[in-house]
Amino acid sequence: MQNTDVLIVGGSAAGITAAITARKHYPEAEITLIRKEEKVLIPCGIPYIVGTLESPEENLIPDTVLSNNNVNIIIDEVTSINKGAKIVSTAGGRTIRYKKMILATGSLPVVPPISGIDLDNVFVVKKEIAYLKNLLKALDEARDVVIIGGGFIGLEFADECRKRGNLNVTVVELLPHCLLVACDEEVCTLVEKKLQERGINILADRRAKALIGNGKVQYVELENGQKIRADVVILGIGVTPNIELAQKAGLEVVEGGGICVDEFMRTSDKDIFAAGDCAQKRCFFTGGPSFLRLASIATMEARVAGANLFRLRRRGECPVGVFSTVIGDLAIGSAGMTERSAKEAGFNVVAGMAKAPDKHPASIPGTKELGVKLVFEKETGILLGGQVWGGVTTGLMANFIGALIQKKMRADEIVIFQVGTHPMLTASPIAHQIQNAAEIALAKMKEGVLRV
Amino acid sequence: MQNTDVLIVGGSAAGITAAITARKHYPEAEITLIRKEEKVLIPCGIPYIVGTLESPEENLIPDTVLSNNNVNIIIDEVTSINKGAKIVSTAGGRTIRYKKMILATGSLPVVPPISGIDLDNVFVVKKEIAYLKNLLKALDEARDVVIIGGGFIGLEFADECRKRGNLNVTVVELLPHCLLVACDEEVCTLVEKKLQERGINILADRRAKALIGNGKVQYVELENGQKIRADVVILGIGVTPNIELAQKAGLEVVEGGGICVDEFMRTSDKDIFAAGDCAQKRCFFTGGPSFLRLASIATMEARVAGANLFRLRRRGECPVGVFSTVIGDLAIGSAGMTERSAKEAGFNVVAGMAKAPDKHPASIPGTKELGVKLVFEKETGILLGGQVWGGVTTGLMANFIGALIQKKMRADEIVIFQVGTHPMLTASPIAHQIQNAAEIALAKMKEGVLRV
Repeated sequence: MQNTDVLIVGGSAAGITAAITARKHYPEAEITLIRKEEKVLIPCGIPYIVGTLESPEENLIPDTVLSNNNVNIIIDEVTSINKGAKIVSTAGGRTIRYKKMILATGSLPVVPPISGIDLDNVFVVKKEIAYLKNLLKALDEARDVVIIGGGFIGLEFADECRKRGNLNVTVVELLPHCLLVACDEEVCTLVEKKLQERGINILADRRAKALIGNGKVQYVELENGQKIRADVVILGIGVTPNIELAQKAGLEVVEGGGICVDEFMRTSDKDIFAAGDCAQKRCFFTGGPSFLRLASIATMEARVAGANLFRLRRRGECPVGVFSTVIGDLAIGSAGMTERSAKEAGFNVVAGMAKAPDKHPASIPGTKELGVKLVFEKETGILLGGQVWGGVTTGLMANFIGALIQKKMRADEIVIFQVGTHPMLTASPIAHQIQNAAEIALAKMKEGVLRV
Repeated sequence: MQNTDVLIVGGSAAGITAAITARKHYPEAEITLIRKEEKVLIPCGIPYIVGTLESPEENLIPDTVLSNNNVNIIIDEVTSINKGAKIVSTAGGRTIRYKKMILATGSLPVVPPISGIDLDNVFVVKKEIAYLKNLLKALDEARDVVIIGGGFIGLEFADECRKRGNLNVTVVELLPHCLLVACDEEVCTLVEKKLQERGINILADRRAKALIGNGKVQYVELENGQKIRADVVILGIGVTPNIELAQKAGLEVVEGGGICVDEFMRTSDKDIFAAGDCAQKRCFFTGGPSFLRLASIATMEARVAGANLFRLRRRGECPVGVFSTVIGDLAIGSAGMTERSAKEAGFNVVAGMAKAPDKHPASIPGTKELGVKLVFEKETGILLGGQVWGGVTTGLMANFIGALIQKKMRADEIVIFQVGTHPMLTASPIAHQIQNAAEIALAKMKEGVLRV
């Protein structure tokens, strides 16, 4: 029997951040992190091992982030929790007694129940080095790759596969456009155009019905009968919370939603916390269930859970959802709701859009256009969401918009919000996208009012 | 006698933005902008005409931003205002009757009263094409350039001069470090190291006593007796509000402070507004006088003034001050107060600092370190300022910090603030600079409290 003050189950973004936070807040506690994986992949970096990086080993989170914080690491798998006795058992035969525990068991890739899904060379996005090396090996021998799912991960894999130079890449997306869950149609269209420029085939509004092959996959068959050659299939259609361990332990869970937690990230057991993909989330805007699963949300929750272990010190926030990605030389980002999702949720919305060069004057070498769309609730003027497209500053522009959303700012406040500007680093202050998009939206809100 | 509903005096950042805003809010008003300059330079772009850009003509704000908004342009100089009759007179012999007026007369470079200041080849930073062409011509024939003033503009000129390849460049700074008004010593030191790497001589803690020459400047003499060769001298030691016209018209002004305005940007005459460098400002943090003069503050004020002309629609905000710049491949930014200036203002402060690669994993090509320092008020935990150093995303990171300052966020809120992350565009969510700097500062605030 081992003993530890704090036991963290899971070693990805949430687990690591929970351990570091616990160390900061409880300097004298013994903290132990237990995980299955010998080495930990950076989850968001996984698509980049296919093209930009040389190997999965270039995409690791070093254990020094834990050892520097005096966190014990055990490589093993927790198989059961006796929450009455506060003891866990592991596949490796260990029993560990804890005072406080944080479950950070993450999520599992969704595998659709279609025929042929078990064929060789059909891959999901697993956070396992050996598995991903098999994917790379299969890509080495492939000519035709089909990616099922045109969300962020799917498109990143598609773009990275093209960087290998010799692959025909097709993306099959169920919705009318790629990225439609995170972006409005005008941004999706920009991305699709860029994907096509880069030689990627897009089949949107199409459902994969079956995978066909003989041992190995050879074709993806769509519901409309079309068959697409495929030496490799990559499935990127989302994740589902990994709640098995929690459920077996008798903690409250919601099937497909996650381990139930309160705003302090406590589960139904007062000594067990949960954070990250495995934890249930509520929508920032509607209070309803949220299916956002992002590393940045996981770390936020872990910073709450880790601080609250022995004292309640922090309340978590509902996830806003801030994304960004890059396809070729086009970066896009999205924060909060899209115009479409806000309307679907029942909001009466107005949007404003503004574009400007991302340096000023535009004659400065390397200048690109950066566009912003902001979506406001019409009645209150409160910012519900924003989208960005442009160059390398897009990710931080999405974060800037995310900040305005989290602080529930109104269009009339945003229009005079202060930003710094510099010729080499930002748009001109006259043409700044955030203020101008807000001003355009304001004019729509006040139609008929804006007269002398 | 001409007539116009709205007369805007001044054609730079504030004047243009005021005109565009007025057009959006008062669609049917006749709007006229009067300015001295035939063509309008982008103010922050001026240093870049020396190296990065080919000529001043590449650094212009096109008149289409006005004509597209149906704003009349008059090239002339207002010489007096009869505010009783609501008529202005111009150097060109015009008289113009207005209903509402916005003064956006900007600022003038400070010229220190030292001997030799009138010698040839001694330049200030004027927003005039012909004047700047003379500067360029002088640089063409120069070998030694001395820049007096190691603030943003001075350092940008220094770096741009070095880009010409053949110039010895020396910066003379009165304070112990360059940039010390906007940054703490550790950031100043980074910048100075970069300047030196780029072959620029820094003479900090030195006062220029006299300029020496025969017709043309030949030497800068320092108070310690040192003489520095100088074929060209550029003075970048700040600006003073251009209030002459307002003062002559009998409007309330504060010498060196600007035209007095209320939160609606109204002057002491209810039909005359002022915005930009010419307008008085109060410090966001202390309520005392603010000497910040930035294009981004000017446009914020112009968006207030332009909206309020015929109805009060917006309250302005006190300037926070968000800067950024680039020296070589190092970008730095600053928002709000520095640790030093906050202490000088009487705040009890704690700071937290965090560095991380600006992409993740750091093996992604083009990754640079991005560091953040956050300064909090110890008693309340409220963010007072932040500084950033790194690559091209630095400008927007400074803006992100500026947003947190404007919303008066506390360290305990910032530590769980949501940001989006992406391998190509940001730090890892585990190592994110903003949250980690806040966590470090929090630990300092709560010393002795953070125990099991």
